[in-house]
Amino acid sequence: MLQLTQQNNAFSVSYNGTALIEHQTSTPVFFTGVGHETMDMYRGNFNIKDYVESRIGLSAFHITTNESKLIAIDFYLNEQEKAINNPILTIKFTVESDKKIEMSLQSHDEAYNRLWVRTPTDKMAPVWGGGEQMSYFNLKGRNFPFWTSEPGVGRDKSTYITWRSDVENKAGGDYYNTNYPQPTFISLTKARDKVYAIHANTTAYADFDFQHDDFHELQFWAIPSSLVWFIDETITGIVESISLFFGRQPKLPDWIIGGAVLGLKKGRAHAEERLEDALQKGVQVSALWCEDWSGIRETSFGVRLFWDWQANEKRYPNLKEWISELNQKNIQFLAYTNPYLCIDGPMYKEGKALGYMATQLDGSDYNVDFGEFYCGVVDFTIPEAKQWFSERIIQKEMLDIGINGWMADFGEYLPIDLKLSDNSDPKHRHNEWPVLWAEVNAHALAAKDKTGDAVFFMRAGYSGVQKHCPLLWGGDQSVDFSRHDGLVTVIPAALSSGLLGNAYHHSDIGGYTSLFGNVRTPELFMRWAEMSLFTPVMRTHECNRPADNFQFWQDDTAYAHFARMTQLHVALVPYVKTLIEEAYHKGLPLQRPLVMHYQTDENTFDIFDQYLYGEDLLIAPVYAAEQNERTVYLPKGQSWIHIWSDTSYEGGQTVSVKAPIGHPPVFIKSNRINNPTLGDFLQKTKA
Amino acid sequence: MLQLTQQNNAFSVSYNGTALIEHQTSTPVFFTGVGHETMDMYRGNFNIKDYVESRIGLSAFHITTNESKLIAIDFYLNEQEKAINNPILTIKFTVESDKKIEMSLQSHDEAYNRLWVRTPTDKMAPVWGGGEQMSYFNLKGRNFPFWTSEPGVGRDKSTYITWRSDVENKAGGDYYNTNYPQPTFISLTKARDKVYAIHANTTAYADFDFQHDDFHELQFWAIPSSLVWFIDETITGIVESISLFFGRQPKLPDWIIGGAVLGLKKGRAHAEERLEDALQKGVQVSALWCEDWSGIRETSFGVRLFWDWQANEKRYPNLKEWISELNQKNIQFLAYTNPYLCIDGPMYKEGKALGYMATQLDGSDYNVDFGEFYCGVVDFTIPEAKQWFSERIIQKEMLDIGINGWMADFGEYLPIDLKLSDNSDPKHRHNEWPVLWAEVNAHALAAKDKTGDAVFFMRAGYSGVQKHCPLLWGGDQSVDFSRHDGLVTVIPAALSSGLLGNAYHHSDIGGYTSLFGNVRTPELFMRWAEMSLFTPVMRTHECNRPADNFQFWQDDTAYAHFARMTQLHVALVPYVKTLIEEAYHKGLPLQRPLVMHYQTDENTFDIFDQYLYGEDLLIAPVYAAEQNERTVYLPKGQSWIHIWSDTSYEGGQTVSVKAPIGHPPVFIKSNRINNPTLGDFLQKTKA
Repeated sequence: MLQLTQQNNAFSVSYNGTALIEHQTSTPVFFTGVGHETMDMYRGNFNIKDYVESRIGLSAFHITTNESKLIAIDFYLNEQEKAINNPILTIKFTVESDKKIEMSLQSHDEAYNRLWVRTPTDKMAPVWGGGEQMSYFNLKGRNFPFWTSEPGVGRDKSTYITWRSDVENKAGGDYYNTNYPQPTFISLTKARDKVYAIHANTTAYADFDFQHDDFHELQFWAIPSSLVWFIDETITGIVESISLFFGRQPKLPDWIIGGAVLGLKKGRAHAEERLEDALQKGVQVSALWCEDWSGIRETSFGVRLFWDWQANEKRYPNLKEWISELNQKNIQFLAYTNPYLCIDGPMYKEGKALGYMATQLDGSDYNVDFGEFYCGVVDFTIPEAKQWFSERIIQKEMLDIGINGWMADFGEYLPIDLKLSDNSDPKHRHNEWPVLWAEVNAHALAAKDKTGDAVFFMRAGYSGVQKHCPLLWGGDQSVDFSRHDGLVTVIPAALSSGLLGNAYHHSDIGGYTSLFGNVRTPELFMRWAEMSLFTPVMRTHECNRPADNFQFWQDDTAYAHFARMTQLHVALVPYVKTLIEEAYHKGLPLQRPLVMHYQTDENTFDIFDQYLYGEDLLIAPVYAAEQNERTVYLPKGQSWIHIWSDTSYEGGQTVSVKAPIGHPPVFIKSNRINNPTLGDFLQKTKA
Repeated sequence: MLQLTQQNNAFSVSYNGTALIEHQTSTPVFFTGVGHETMDMYRGNFNIKDYVESRIGLSAFHITTNESKLIAIDFYLNEQEKAINNPILTIKFTVESDKKIEMSLQSHDEAYNRLWVRTPTDKMAPVWGGGEQMSYFNLKGRNFPFWTSEPGVGRDKSTYITWRSDVENKAGGDYYNTNYPQPTFISLTKARDKVYAIHANTTAYADFDFQHDDFHELQFWAIPSSLVWFIDETITGIVESISLFFGRQPKLPDWIIGGAVLGLKKGRAHAEERLEDALQKGVQVSALWCEDWSGIRETSFGVRLFWDWQANEKRYPNLKEWISELNQKNIQFLAYTNPYLCIDGPMYKEGKALGYMATQLDGSDYNVDFGEFYCGVVDFTIPEAKQWFSERIIQKEMLDIGINGWMADFGEYLPIDLKLSDNSDPKHRHNEWPVLWAEVNAHALAAKDKTGDAVFFMRAGYSGVQKHCPLLWGGDQSVDFSRHDGLVTVIPAALSSGLLGNAYHHSDIGGYTSLFGNVRTPELFMRWAEMSLFTPVMRTHECNRPADNFQFWQDDTAYAHFARMTQLHVALVPYVKTLIEEAYHKGLPLQRPLVMHYQTDENTFDIFDQYLYGEDLLIAPVYAAEQNERTVYLPKGQSWIHIWSDTSYEGGQTVSVKAPIGHPPVFIKSNRINNPTLGDFLQKTKA
């Protein structure tokens, strides 16, 4: 039940004892103001600044009740204003279920374009979520801007790679940069007896500041239509609610969870050769992912693709027939697309002739610089343009020739100075663009009755992408072990996005971005592969500069290691199928933060480098070079068996275990050692 | 005359047609607010952030007049507040002369700790001053925090050296970092018919933002007691007023302006050897500057000095007698001191016993980390402590043994978390510290009747340092040609500080900071020497790592070049003496921005890499490697003669002239070619 407490110039609203907002004249819930932003984009990297001209606490309020039921609260700058003027802001609460309360916000003064909202917390309360966060799992102590963008190279101002990337490409990034931000977070109440989440309904730029002791401060560059609180006893309960709210994903099909997707980009002959070789070496292959299916172009960054989204006959002769042959061997063919069309390709001309490309403000062509080539932006605010992309490109050029999945790349680059057909402000649509892009892809699957069979995977996202995108991939990590852009970053990425209803996550095995002499080593590939085994999809990538970087077929040890990891991946299929059922019915992600099942164990609050794979397995990947062991925290309340040594450890302690390549720290809950769906897997680990 | 114009909810105050402040409800003059700052110091480098909790325009006002004379203006948050509450702020104007108007500010609400003041301008108006600015001469288009600190190494985030310095020492800095900031700027009115300056009377942190089209926004972290406007027809007039306001410097003595000060730091024998050799090579020597006079200590940064400020008998045996011998040869002996005392020296113990050292809040010792050694801070808020430092150290240990000058180093490091004896807030004294330090030194000179004879030189400064410090030096440049920390930066440093009443500026010939493999070349030394010839004092420095860096005696070409530059310096003495008279009587600096004498020539507004040396010579140093010519802008209205080629050029154009080493671009006003004080110099340039 919603409770209103009022005393002199203060009030609070709580729900079943959980404080939602707490207001005093000196510490108001809302601050309003005026900001003048500058947002410069360079190849998907944004330099964003705000000149805050005013920021004023809405210190006075008026509460309207009806028979002691809270109806609305009006906010004013101060008591004097209240006496003579209309309110600045009105909020209303709707209890939508016993686990979900919506607070609508209505602004009455369009002069204000900034809003800051404070929600109560305490110094030690953890904060999770925020979309797909690559650096930190517990967000407490930092601020997180929410603006979909390139995530940065290195993402750490103290590294040489980030410095070089900043200087040469404005592309270094920082801890908060992500392809998939989302203004939604999960936390614990002060009494730690409840879990709550707050989601802001807005697509405008936002910045949540978790650095304050007593409050979180949520900043918005447009008034959000509402804030939604989810409240529950457990994190799993919250995740169930959130995933329903944003829309459950379809089940991941069987074909993709057993064996590896081989990422190749040197034409058909290369793909055939690699496939035959891999099968001979014992690699379990589920699909070939040939991102160069539509052709390539060479740039200084490396080999880029030709963004026109039709099969390139020269590079992939008789593609349709070949796909059919592959399918007969139970191998799928995956491709690549993104929402842009290069201006030197025929699709762009077709889309432009139909009036489907976004334009300059004066109606002339708007071409986006993607790094030595230019593209038009398909205007997804035009329903017919979405339909056209779905039918003309994805259905006709891809699904109809048997392509059963693809990387649905990008979505983060919507420029903020172009003209959209519906005249909406691109600054307010920028964050939404990945969701529209996901819709276009999902619609194509649905139209061809391929939902839950064909699979596209995205790196970009925002609130609502969950409903449409069946699989995330972690974007473009550096080909290294670095703390903020290497192997380990895909763990918090999976955990944070997983809490918000994205059950399926995976990453490029071995990373993607190789710049400034930073190249992939066999060790990195092997460590990444042995982690990926414990994600639903194992997929390799030749990276941006294949010739300079290690490929698994170049080294017998790595090749054999990779083959074995794919075999273990297949052995996990029965277990993973149970997890997919859980994802479908409860929205629980496959990769889970330890705190999800051990929320009373405070030691789990910050853990970003371990995860539960389902409820039974605990995975602690090795994510540094030249390690032969690593320390692992085992949650309280039960014992855990190290699968390689069969040693049992009591929970509630940090242990160190041997972890040579091929034997990453993996533990099973001791009371689940006989889980039949894990039998084959456990047996194979002894082989 | 002060004019008040009032209309509905707007007013403006102007003086003889020059707008001082312009207020409308929607664009108020003042914003008040609350900020929560964090200021972390690491070895003189500060990381400063502000969480602005509120920022509110003071939109309502009440004007009090008496027989149409403006008495006071009260400011309120809004009309409603005005109706019932006391004002937040009251301002009063005092016309102190027909060229100086003071606006006092009185705050009535201590809850507010931030103030923003907007003063009218236009998009194209130039802005100069801001203390000793090393990167830019025209400050328009950027913001400038005013907080005395280390200036940074590299001062350019795009350089490797700055990146390394940031990562390893938090010391990279940025364009605005300076040892000597000052919240004073000079600009032109919108009609360009008047010159005005605004000075803020405060020692709190401030930040002037010159990025806006229609207003400058002056931010203060405490309410300044007043703003002072200087208004004049000419820049020279403004400089005359400003220099009187802050206090004119004593005349620079003859001994220091002719010949070079040799900076040496390897003990007496080394100094004697270098002196003898230099004299033999024809170097004109005015003084030896032996900064290691009090001993040394070795650190990873390089050789540091022993901060105890007594002659080190081992390193400089019989110093007093030796100084006397040097004086007989017309050579002075200069030393080094700073306001800190190392805790392993006897002076610290003496000062501490007297209760003169600042302490922790709990009264325990406060020791500052200066890089592998620790020092106490002499508490200059104790008058007796200032007296003690002046008498016990500077008079007794230095002046009394014949030391006739010194580098009065540092002053920027006052920590902001210590306890001062008068219980004042160190955050509000930090900027003042260099001025107190200058006072201590100046007092010692005065007490020994040495003002205008002995010369100390400082890098740190703040408003008021002018009165006490007879000579600035540009601080610790990198030993390179870099744009933001190399040779060229000492030009804007001299020009900006010169406009604010610091007539005398010089720099370490060849720069000082050698880190990360960056070392001084002979070319750099030669280019720096040939610029320094056109500054009042030529002084060498062995730099922080003498063994790794070029010294002038290591190369015959450089040695001969240096000797010749010192000879030309001597030849300039008659001219420089006229400039010193001008400085004394009018406050005009020796190194002058072109705009000072050509303020109607807009092409001069931004020029940071050329200067007038007095009114007759125009200097355009070569500040890049491997150049044999450079382009020079010659101001409008007359012709200029290139002194090396005797070619005459009309003003108002950019010309390119040959500029091999030894022949930096120097021009003389054609109508001053027969200036008798320049005769000897011009003749020697032909030799």
